[in-house]
Amino acid sequence: MPRTIAVLGGTGPEGFGLALRWVQAGETVIIGSRDAKRAQDAAEKIRQRAGANAKIVGDENASACTVADLLVLTIPFEGHAALLKQIKPGIRPGSIVIDATVPLAASVGGRASRTLGVWQASAAQQTAELVPKGISVVAAFQNVGAELLNAEGPVDCDVIVCSDDPNASQIALQLATRIPGVRAIDGGKLENARILEQITALLIGLNIRHKGHSGIRITGLPPEAYSSQ
Amino acid sequence: MPRTIAVLGGTGPEGFGLALRWVQAGETVIIGSRDAKRAQDAAEKIRQRAGANAKIVGDENASACTVADLLVLTIPFEGHAALLKQIKPGIRPGSIVIDATVPLAASVGGRASRTLGVWQASAAQQTAELVPKGISVVAAFQNVGAELLNAEGPVDCDVIVCSDDPNASQIALQLATRIPGVRAIDGGKLENARILEQITALLIGLNIRHKGHSGIRITGLPPEAYSSQ
Repeated sequence: MPRTIAVLGGTGPEGFGLALRWVQAGETVIIGSRDAKRAQDAAEKIRQRAGANAKIVGDENASACTVADLLVLTIPFEGHAALLKQIKPGIRPGSIVIDATVPLAASVGGRASRTLGVWQASAAQQTAELVPKGISVVAAFQNVGAELLNAEGPVDCDVIVCSDDPNASQIALQLATRIPGVRAIDGGKLENARILEQITALLIGLNIRHKGHSGIRITGLPPEAYSSQ
Repeated sequence: MPRTIAVLGGTGPEGFGLALRWVQAGETVIIGSRDAKRAQDAAEKIRQRAGANAKIVGDENASACTVADLLVLTIPFEGHAALLKQIKPGIRPGSIVIDATVPLAASVGGRASRTLGVWQASAAQQTAELVPKGISVVAAFQNVGAELLNAEGPVDCDVIVCSDDPNASQIALQLATRIPGVRAIDGGKLENARILEQITALLIGLNIRHKGHSGIRITGLPPEAYSSQ
């Protein structure tokens, strides 16, 4: 069954990079943005990189949700709750929301190497509170830097997936493995999202300090713990 | 100049493993414990594994501090503040305290895959508050599992080092590279210890879920960011 992935905030570098990788892997993607025109421009850029068979369109965020089964949030934290409230009425029953948002202190004028304290403990847990009942939330993709996604070649990073819904985790694990180089690991319950989000702040700090594009790999687990292409 | 490393709480698996690796690398180590006899027994076990030239003794924690320049804390969080208060009078001026403690919820009967909220934001920052003035604190080694340290062969894990004192960071980076396989990375200021400590909880959760001995590697930094043997 073909599925459609809506990457909300997909005109930003992280969302654009994820959308690009999924389109390159043959997935059907809608780039969502506050501005439909910007979304369409981004979709066109992805088409140019991915080729004529690319299954990609762009639309306004709320419209994008109405035709997608998988919603991926790649928005700055300052727009996170507002976007969820805006799209809530249009989220289709049975959809899965995959949240890559990190509550960086940069959202309120602070540093990108620090996080804000979120009452629910993580952006992803805030999402779980804001989506309609019955919609599963997965935390994933926070630690895969936009530069790596937008570059050519495999991505040297693992993706840890956290959710209270094992079926939703499975789908996110599968989506992660569509990115060449990525190994996907089930990280347990959604409550662990708080750690994934903080790791991003650490990686941003390392990038600034050492002038790199860092990621993480998890070592020492048995082979069956890692999903990959 | 020969230096002496006191591993406080070194009869526990993490401290024992670090002490073993350092002794094997030719460092001079004192195992510290609440109980001098247990410390001496642990030191003897390390001597048996590391050979007759091993420079290792065992003593009570507070005594160990009085003859060491580098103090490494590998104690359960429930004993953390009490130990620091106990050893404070004996800490030699110019010593460096390297804190590997993680405030796991297991300390108060909760899960080892969750952390407690510490007022100062991390165990290492609590340490900075409890040591005498002029003593530098470094956060490091939280994410290197005891099983890996106590096994034979190289350790497939990076050590991120955080401190407000760049000289202290340098010494901790150097100590980390004495462990075969480890790459040491400067992770910036001590405030980032909170993230290192949480990563341990994530890794413990992964170990439970996937039955492994996980660690982390940081990818994507330029070669000069990594120190190794």
